[in-house]
Amino acid sequence: MAAPASTPVGSCKVVLAASIAKKLLEEVHDGLKKVDHKPRLHGFLANSDPAAKMYANWTAKTCQENGFDFTLREVAREDLEDVLREANQDPNVDGILVYYPVFDTTRDRTLQWTVSLYKDVEGLSPQLISNMYQNIRFLDPPANQLKSILPCTPLAVIKILEHLQIYNTFLDYGKRLFGRRITVINRSEVVGRPLAALLANDGAEVFSVDVTGVQRFTRGTGLKKQKHEVEDLEGWQLKDCLLNSDVVISGVPGDSYKVPTELIREGAVCINFSSEKNFSPDVKEKASIYVPAIGKVTIVILLRNLLRIVQNLRENQQRNGESA
Amino acid sequence: MAAPASTPVGSCKVVLAASIAKKLLEEVHDGLKKVDHKPRLHGFLANSDPAAKMYANWTAKTCQENGFDFTLREVAREDLEDVLREANQDPNVDGILVYYPVFDTTRDRTLQWTVSLYKDVEGLSPQLISNMYQNIRFLDPPANQLKSILPCTPLAVIKILEHLQIYNTFLDYGKRLFGRRITVINRSEVVGRPLAALLANDGAEVFSVDVTGVQRFTRGTGLKKQKHEVEDLEGWQLKDCLLNSDVVISGVPGDSYKVPTELIREGAVCINFSSEKNFSPDVKEKASIYVPAIGKVTIVILLRNLLRIVQNLRENQQRNGESA
Repeated sequence: MAAPASTPVGSCKVVLAASIAKKLLEEVHDGLKKVDHKPRLHGFLANSDPAAKMYANWTAKTCQENGFDFTLREVAREDLEDVLREANQDPNVDGILVYYPVFDTTRDRTLQWTVSLYKDVEGLSPQLISNMYQNIRFLDPPANQLKSILPCTPLAVIKILEHLQIYNTFLDYGKRLFGRRITVINRSEVVGRPLAALLANDGAEVFSVDVTGVQRFTRGTGLKKQKHEVEDLEGWQLKDCLLNSDVVISGVPGDSYKVPTELIREGAVCINFSSEKNFSPDVKEKASIYVPAIGKVTIVILLRNLLRIVQNLRENQQRNGESA
Repeated sequence: MAAPASTPVGSCKVVLAASIAKKLLEEVHDGLKKVDHKPRLHGFLANSDPAAKMYANWTAKTCQENGFDFTLREVAREDLEDVLREANQDPNVDGILVYYPVFDTTRDRTLQWTVSLYKDVEGLSPQLISNMYQNIRFLDPPANQLKSILPCTPLAVIKILEHLQIYNTFLDYGKRLFGRRITVINRSEVVGRPLAALLANDGAEVFSVDVTGVQRFTRGTGLKKQKHEVEDLEGWQLKDCLLNSDVVISGVPGDSYKVPTELIREGAVCINFSSEKNFSPDVKEKASIYVPAIGKVTIVILLRNLLRIVQNLRENQQRNGESA
């Protein structure tokens, strides 16, 4: 694509996900050189949605282009739980990715719980999710050598904020958003809520907004709490959040929603993770940085998670005295 | 001194000026290696205040320790204007520093206007001050090779904010404070007002507070204006400013003034440039970063300005075809 990495529009930098993905991909390639085999991802497709098939093909292409091994396994949905249990035990499978929805009911949650936490590239296993909310960053405390796996889209947003230097590396690790106020529009279990939790765990004051109202996620005065707590902000509306926010992150599905530009503060950083455009074009008149889409970063995070799984495996084997 | 460079107190980093000064001094030392002679600073003392004499001795010591040449010239104050005119012409004088107050009346301004703008290490010459307010960063537009000299204390604060990564280097030069809201308590002509102007010229929204009220310094929506403009915020009080500010910079003389900690927002960056402590010890419960004093950075800026004058001189000589 010929578009430049960042195009200045007035004083707003429009930052394309591709430019951030490129840098993250370099880190992934460096990591790949240090592991003893090509990481093997197995993708499990158990629905007939053409969109899921397309996503599967896209995963395959991205893996192949970047030195990862990908196997697509099409499975009848009633067989999927058994197949996943076998894959958990199969030493030739490093990472597992399930194309959801499968049943499109709460039964899908059972599938998420079936995938081994040591192979879950999407970070949906109960222990991984619990670690994320509890601000526990390793799988093996107190040794803290095996990093826990975070869900791809929330982690993509965090990597974008790091790239944009919204994380202040002058502050200590784990507190680098201290002093930042961030609005997250969307509180889904898949992205919005975990994202709000991760940002608050890193020190931000987060306003989490959805149709039911506004919640604040924070670690309290002076970040004295080890993990975030959540409180309802009765009577608060989106405008109260935006008035106070340095960073606005929106992921509302559907093409009708727009964050009202007039409520966004001067110089805010605006990031859209919806597949639709949640910001109007005139956001560039007000924002200091605008990231219109994040998909290309998310897919790199999937590879990064897979690499981390292989690194954790090697670390674990070395610790147990086996040859790596 | 045995104190560490930054001491964590809860989640607040207390950053001592010495640690920032050290890094800036390294840059100055690197620059010194590339100039053809030891920069020569002449300090003019025309008052009998023991404090001025002490400051002069401190300048001498700092210059000598860091590879600069310092000459103290004690002069009767009625002779000072003539002596400064001679120094302006004297090729053996690179930089001029006058220990104010001399007459302690507006007559001192005539002295400031007498010092050549090409030798003024304090940045008090009318053209330098005009450049600063007008956001003109070079002495020789459009060639833009000779950087204008900025007053030491305001520039020290800016260098501190750069060190703390409050300036976001992901943004373009000249706009790196876009989105930051900063309260400056003190609007003196020597520090507070120039500082507010510099911060706003770099993209911040600045609330400038003194006993007469609150003013806002900004470059307007989307930083569309090339330089800051100032408006009175009728009815605003300190608390309105602090509620909105990521950064609080205070320089109120006298030992009775304290910025009320309860009005400072969670995770704010707090910097004191008063010789007294304008923040209470409990600021560490709320701030993300606290810089209790800046004097050691200011003195390095004086050396940096002197070095810049010598670099500008060389650039000018080379441009005019003379040997450097």
